[in-house]
Amino acid sequence: MSGRLQGSVRIVGTGLIGTSIGLALSKQGTTVSLEDASPANQRLAADYGAGRVASASDLPDLIVVCVPPDVTARVVAAELKAFPTAIVTDVASVKSRILDELAASGADLARYVGSHPMAGRERGGAASGRADIFIGRPWVVATHSEASANAMKLVEELALDLGSNPIRMSPAEHDRAVALVSHVPQLVSSLLAARLVGASGVELAGQGLRDTTRIAASDPKLWVQILGANATEIVGLLRDYRADLDRVINALSNVDATGSLSTIDQAIANGNRGVEQLPGKHGSKRSQLANFIVVIEDRPGELARLFNEITEIGINVEDLKLEHNPGAQLGMVELSVDPVQAKKLQDDLTTRGWRFA
Amino acid sequence: MSGRLQGSVRIVGTGLIGTSIGLALSKQGTTVSLEDASPANQRLAADYGAGRVASASDLPDLIVVCVPPDVTARVVAAELKAFPTAIVTDVASVKSRILDELAASGADLARYVGSHPMAGRERGGAASGRADIFIGRPWVVATHSEASANAMKLVEELALDLGSNPIRMSPAEHDRAVALVSHVPQLVSSLLAARLVGASGVELAGQGLRDTTRIAASDPKLWVQILGANATEIVGLLRDYRADLDRVINALSNVDATGSLSTIDQAIANGNRGVEQLPGKHGSKRSQLANFIVVIEDRPGELARLFNEITEIGINVEDLKLEHNPGAQLGMVELSVDPVQAKKLQDDLTTRGWRFA
Repeated sequence: MSGRLQGSVRIVGTGLIGTSIGLALSKQGTTVSLEDASPANQRLAADYGAGRVASASDLPDLIVVCVPPDVTARVVAAELKAFPTAIVTDVASVKSRILDELAASGADLARYVGSHPMAGRERGGAASGRADIFIGRPWVVATHSEASANAMKLVEELALDLGSNPIRMSPAEHDRAVALVSHVPQLVSSLLAARLVGASGVELAGQGLRDTTRIAASDPKLWVQILGANATEIVGLLRDYRADLDRVINALSNVDATGSLSTIDQAIANGNRGVEQLPGKHGSKRSQLANFIVVIEDRPGELARLFNEITEIGINVEDLKLEHNPGAQLGMVELSVDPVQAKKLQDDLTTRGWRFA
Repeated sequence: MSGRLQGSVRIVGTGLIGTSIGLALSKQGTTVSLEDASPANQRLAADYGAGRVASASDLPDLIVVCVPPDVTARVVAAELKAFPTAIVTDVASVKSRILDELAASGADLARYVGSHPMAGRERGGAASGRADIFIGRPWVVATHSEASANAMKLVEELALDLGSNPIRMSPAEHDRAVALVSHVPQLVSSLLAARLVGASGVELAGQGLRDTTRIAASDPKLWVQILGANATEIVGLLRDYRADLDRVINALSNVDATGSLSTIDQAIANGNRGVEQLPGKHGSKRSQLANFIVVIEDRPGELARLFNEITEIGINVEDLKLEHNPGAQLGMVELSVDPVQAKKLQDDLTTRGWRFA
């Protein structure tokens, strides 16, 4: 046992998140039992090493409910009843509605603390489970007034054991935050990508459009549940977004009218300010990194050669991105490094014959 | 002389694009003369090696006008008059309005073909000029009925000499296409990022929000001009976008009403279909590549070691992306490869001790 968590853990729902939690806890020596509505899923997760199949004699200390958002409250309530001494948490990506439903059902809220690991993959299911998807990610622990100190402690230990950074928030704070950083961006990106269907001229697309629409490839079935369960927070933000959009549409519809150009200018400038708010890698702001683009030949070995030489130069790359160049036999790699080291890196790479875009 | 272009080239406007064209043409041995409203800018570009300062006796065969969109038509008309045998093109990111203004001014349209290299950098100015920013990028050649065959030929030779892929489109087709793939995404991204200003909960942001708002960091001054000059095409698309947005807002405002969930489902599903339209690297669709994520230690040399070993395995990486993990000492690299080779690459990397997320 190398983890903080003492005692045994029961996982209900062996999809991607449940299986991933089971794999990570089992790896550190915690006893994990697995429950799933589908006996086949349950056995599959056990076969992958996420724990052992649950039995009637289990006496778990902590129960982690990892079922779809629309059935989470019902399953949490049932678990609180079936295991009258266990602490129960869930991992659903909405929090207020679940707490409200539990309170209405008269559940023992002292033993319940909701949570939300900010991790996931585009693929779901036990087969996609991986022990390390939580490493370095925020894990929201949804505080509420009736939660016992022991319930808070166990859920935070769970997050820490999985390599996450636990962050305390109220359910309402959580739901507002994920509407802002996840749910609204999903809709904005999906609606933008939808404009490409059947359109001509898409062959001119560059990296900008590609980045803006990447998350539009996400699973509709899962997102309908998430968006539906956090509708109130999302609608508030979308209405503000639409008000800004209306101002831009009006300005562009009367582009020669007084104030039109300044409205457009402000929209772009406010976007600049918004991007500055984003946390970068290791908590540094993105704007604090120096970015430049190296041109590489598109053949095996060129990327390796580049990173070898960066290693020889002795500088750490904070971020990188490969640019697509449809039809070309050249690629562009955008490197982000500590600005103090950027000049030396560029000079040394130039000496070694690399070209910059 | 290693280029296709015969004769000499005059560049008017020595900002980022003008200087970059001058650098590339000079490198291949083409005679380039440089003109700029600012004598200091003009000399700076010449000092960087983009060509020689223009003189009264120049007799250019091709003139490339690289000034801001709002003065492009006026400068093109003046150049057509001043050099009565030269072919003239421009590189502005809008095309219809410029052709209309030229036609209205009675310019000699046989000698004018507009163009638009789909290339650029976030920084502007002669000092940011690089000969290779055009390599592998589309270069729109804006056809019109009065253009001479020789004018078309010279502009296409220019694009090819700079390493671009010339694509013929009418000015209207071009303006619709860039509204779709560039101008509307810019506004959508800026308006989304603007919602982050002063908001709490931004610390939960992940890669999705980061990608969706990356281009929101772009320069307001330049974008006001671009958006203003293509307002009609942009407004049409934005109104369609707003209609979709309204449907989603209505659905989320009455989430329990019949048809609400299917409206949300369709919005996300249409986004899926839109993303499928995007060209991938080498023209392959993104969905035709296999993607997986390798976990790496966050220290100098790990990326190099990974790409070394991929080289030893002998497989070409089509695309890659580094995932941010705020606060963590681990990174994730998403690799995209030919699906036929994906299994071998994963197996061989596993054998070498790499972990997958």
